[in-house]
Amino acid sequence: MNRPLYVDCDTGVDDALALAYLLASPEITLVGIGCVSGNVSAAQAAENTLRLLALAGRDAIPVAVGAHDPLAGRFDGGAPHVHGENGLGGVELPATTVRAADESAADMLLRLSHEHAGNLEVLAIGPLTNLAVALRRDPSLPERVRQVTVMGGAALAPGNITPVAEANIGNDPEAAQAVLGAAWPIMLVPLDVTMANILEEKHRHRLCEAASPAVAVVGRMLDGYFDFYVEEYGRRCSALHDPLAAAIAVGGAGACIAPAVDVVVDATKGPGRGQTICDLRGQRGGAADRPGAHVRVVLETDGDLAPHLLRRLLSEAA
Amino acid sequence: MNRPLYVDCDTGVDDALALAYLLASPEITLVGIGCVSGNVSAAQAAENTLRLLALAGRDAIPVAVGAHDPLAGRFDGGAPHVHGENGLGGVELPATTVRAADESAADMLLRLSHEHAGNLEVLAIGPLTNLAVALRRDPSLPERVRQVTVMGGAALAPGNITPVAEANIGNDPEAAQAVLGAAWPIMLVPLDVTMANILEEKHRHRLCEAASPAVAVVGRMLDGYFDFYVEEYGRRCSALHDPLAAAIAVGGAGACIAPAVDVVVDATKGPGRGQTICDLRGQRGGAADRPGAHVRVVLETDGDLAPHLLRRLLSEAA
Repeated sequence: MNRPLYVDCDTGVDDALALAYLLASPEITLVGIGCVSGNVSAAQAAENTLRLLALAGRDAIPVAVGAHDPLAGRFDGGAPHVHGENGLGGVELPATTVRAADESAADMLLRLSHEHAGNLEVLAIGPLTNLAVALRRDPSLPERVRQVTVMGGAALAPGNITPVAEANIGNDPEAAQAVLGAAWPIMLVPLDVTMANILEEKHRHRLCEAASPAVAVVGRMLDGYFDFYVEEYGRRCSALHDPLAAAIAVGGAGACIAPAVDVVVDATKGPGRGQTICDLRGQRGGAADRPGAHVRVVLETDGDLAPHLLRRLLSEAA
Repeated sequence: MNRPLYVDCDTGVDDALALAYLLASPEITLVGIGCVSGNVSAAQAAENTLRLLALAGRDAIPVAVGAHDPLAGRFDGGAPHVHGENGLGGVELPATTVRAADESAADMLLRLSHEHAGNLEVLAIGPLTNLAVALRRDPSLPERVRQVTVMGGAALAPGNITPVAEANIGNDPEAAQAVLGAAWPIMLVPLDVTMANILEEKHRHRLCEAASPAVAVVGRMLDGYFDFYVEEYGRRCSALHDPLAAAIAVGGAGACIAPAVDVVVDATKGPGRGQTICDLRGQRGGAADRPGAHVRVVLETDGDLAPHLLRRLLSEAA
């Protein structure tokens, strides 16, 4: 078996693109997918994921519903202005009879960590609630996980839901602090790099024309998502948040500047709530790892993600 | 009379360099200097300032002692590891019989704001305690001030006393919030630009050889200060924090990218305490002013400060 990967997501448009990419990635085997509230509710995210897997002919991959609410407070209703009401840019995927697993996402993660002890890798592209719940249930979880890749945060770049907070972290700062504070090796993929990797309209058109129905439908989902980014970039296109984290997790994209530094999440009720405070002082002379730090913050990636993404999604295997 | 300028400082090595620059700047008239605890205590800062003015033959400029403690908490003892025990890199300036004014710095600022109503400009290169005290005593102060330039904060760059807090703001976040929140036009000169303007050893040697004793002695003060920056820059040199703010205030340096945006100071007790949270979202397509925002955040300056600084400090007039 290839490297076993558990994905935690809030499927959303860019989650769907990331999932399509992962389904086409031979380096890993998707052993389970947990869903969490973020872009949409955890239940909607699971339904979106099940339907996408069914369309891709991959519905043997188990999907678990996870936390509806963040550790503190209530689910805020998601981001319909970004991802559409159903999270998929208004695209209706064919229904499937496959249902979500009987276990919660946190329990699935814990189970998989035993089944693949020492080998399991984790990719989190939504709020970190499910991972935090799993850590609470079993604080020894990190001992059985090889690597955690997280799309989230903003190091030196502005945030996206507040001046300093990125959505995945800002939607559950308490969970993020628990996950980033736990003793497993984490690769944090923040807005600093995800905003710099862009999918253009020409790329989207190629996705829409893909032979794979699951890939083509993601191209259609991106239509409204592209509108959202006009204000940011001045043209129809989109950042590649979750796909970049997926590519880094798989090894399809390289993190060429990613120092290991102290990272603390602001979990106050103040104006900095949800910020990933990364200690990047003293890095002027080149990236320098802080002894003992277990979180790598990706500040630069090699190459441009979009061409790689397209090659993989449009290959025969996809 | 040239443009009347009140300077609030915590004299310190780079404050001394900024003061020497201001004394050589024909655009402005220094009508008063208030001192505040920061690099050193307010009393020490005033003594340093009085001695520097005396050495420059400019001791008619009134100097007032201001707040010893920040609005909340106690003065932390300053930064002897950066500025030396006396704040002047261990250099002993000749004593002077001139004493500080009978009024406090806040009262001096209020008095000057009436004497130069509508024309007074303010340059703050220390913690903002004195300005905040003046605002508390008379909330109408901003109506009589033309412009406030503040060296402080970090927008997208790392902080210097914490991962996100710069010293002037971090040493009194409550005062900074009051000052940045008041309705006067503010130019905030953060670490983003001050760390990018550097004085090199060759520049320092030229200062040491200046005909003006007040300029030459600042060159000597910079000796130990240069050692401090080796860890940051990998060589003996220094950032030009206060001198850059002084040059921008005077007009000797231009702020070519300085959008007016919402700025909030983190005054929580959390990990973000002392951060200047600048809302720089949506600036990707070029600097854009937010309607109603009264704080400009300098993100880029034109040219290199050091040659301008030297020209002015080494001219006959200096």
